Amino acid sequence: MTYCVGLWLRDGLVMLSDTRTHAGVDNISTFNKMHVLEKPGERVMCLMTAGNLAVSQAVVNLLWEGLPNETNGQVETLETVPSMFRAVQLAGTAIRQTFRTDGPAMKAQDISFDVSLLLGGQIAGRSLRLFQVYAAGNFIEATEDTPFLQIGEHKYGKPILDRAVTYGTDLYDAVKLGLISMDSTVRSNLTVGLPVDLILVRRDQMAVEMKRRITEDDPYFQMVRERWSTSLREAFQALPNPEWPPSA
Amino acid sequence: MTYCVGLWLRDGLVMLSDTRTHAGVDNISTFNKMHVLEKPGERVMCLMTAGNLAVSQAVVNLLWEGLPNETNGQVETLETVPSMFRAVQLAGTAIRQTFRTDGPAMKAQDISFDVSLLLGGQIAGRSLRLFQVYAAGNFIEATEDTPFLQIGEHKYGKPILDRAVTYGTDLYDAVKLGLISMDSTVRSNLTVGLPVDLILVRRDQMAVEMKRRITEDDPYFQMVRERWSTSLREAFQALPNPEWPPSA
Repeated sequence: MTYCVGLWLRDGLVMLSDTRTHAGVDNISTFNKMHVLEKPGERVMCLMTAGNLAVSQAVVNLLWEGLPNETNGQVETLETVPSMFRAVQLAGTAIRQTFRTDGPAMKAQDISFDVSLLLGGQIAGRSLRLFQVYAAGNFIEATEDTPFLQIGEHKYGKPILDRAVTYGTDLYDAVKLGLISMDSTVRSNLTVGLPVDLILVRRDQMAVEMKRRITEDDPYFQMVRERWSTSLREAFQALPNPEWPPSA
Repeated sequence: MTYCVGLWLRDGLVMLSDTRTHAGVDNISTFNKMHVLEKPGERVMCLMTAGNLAVSQAVVNLLWEGLPNETNGQVETLETVPSMFRAVQLAGTAIRQTFRTDGPAMKAQDISFDVSLLLGGQIAGRSLRLFQVYAAGNFIEATEDTPFLQIGEHKYGKPILDRAVTYGTDLYDAVKLGLISMDSTVRSNLTVGLPVDLILVRRDQMAVEMKRRITEDDPYFQMVRERWSTSLREAFQALPNPEWPPSA
């Protein structure tokens, strides 16, 4: 399983992914699910993947190698697309291409064609955008009303984001919230695991401001985990007990 | 959908269930999913159900009407069983009986036979116990290592319990944590909804200490929701920002 979350905020973008993959509980590996493209000053993009690993890797390879543009036949890659909208269309095309190639053989063996992507970034002179791409190659975009998108095992990490994230959330608060959301998921689902890849892109900078692989023994992450658990305990203990009348 | 949680603690039992059922998003109703049996001083039991409502109600009816004991043919109900172990066996038998009756017709229409139960309580002179019963009629029991059990939409409400609940948790702290866990679920899944039924049974009392239906406008529940969200915001804002070096 996988957990990836992208936060699209007034000041920029924060994206996190775990790195665990598994084929059954006895075959667990670490794979990079975050792919970053940075041409400082010109464009910055981050692609994260969830789902069947063979499908995800095929899609990523197609995006890096390029696909022919449907109208003029020229090969396009994430490095050459003129806009984020064209980038996410290309990602959808890569998924559909993979489905044409591998889908029938997978179906013949009852393996579901399961893949989803988060693609965020900005090209100079254009808007910062964040998209979620489905297995059919169609996609949705984060908005001010819904400033975060999740793929993979999304439920455990959602309540803290639902309660705390708004479009105006500070980028470094978003880093903390992303780590807490990830920690909640890692604790509850063994198939989501550290290390965590994290990236922070400030709006209109067309560059990565922070990129970090966070391991189990990262002192900052350890501190966040511990202080968060302590804060929660203190918070519910500080709530008064109910004063409902005893049952009749 | 449904969310029910039972906390089996050193001092007693706290159980909560939502009350929303739905057949599609345009057919939503309120049904009682918590069934309490109390003979003060003699026995107290609480049964909560999740899954297909017709199956759940059939199972509850069988348990209240009684089933013949397999060895002596005498009709047993939750009011007559001599132990909680026998009570949970009876619940499993009721599920299997319902599967025999309704399973084939449901299968013919591709409706899954989906039901799960939480059954907790105590009979005088015996132990307080909490069980989770699966659709096959088999079951597991809460232990000191795993002092809470959940059925239905369990993921959103699990992180707070994972972080905060131990066997030694105070019963009224467990009420608060149960309400927070329920609130996290209600916020994230529209098919789980208020009012919430809540019961508190203190160990060795063989009686209900507190039983409450909590509606949207319950002042205590409103206070818990608001102060909890505020506490979370304050907690992550109090965390220092990471001091990782900027990416190269």
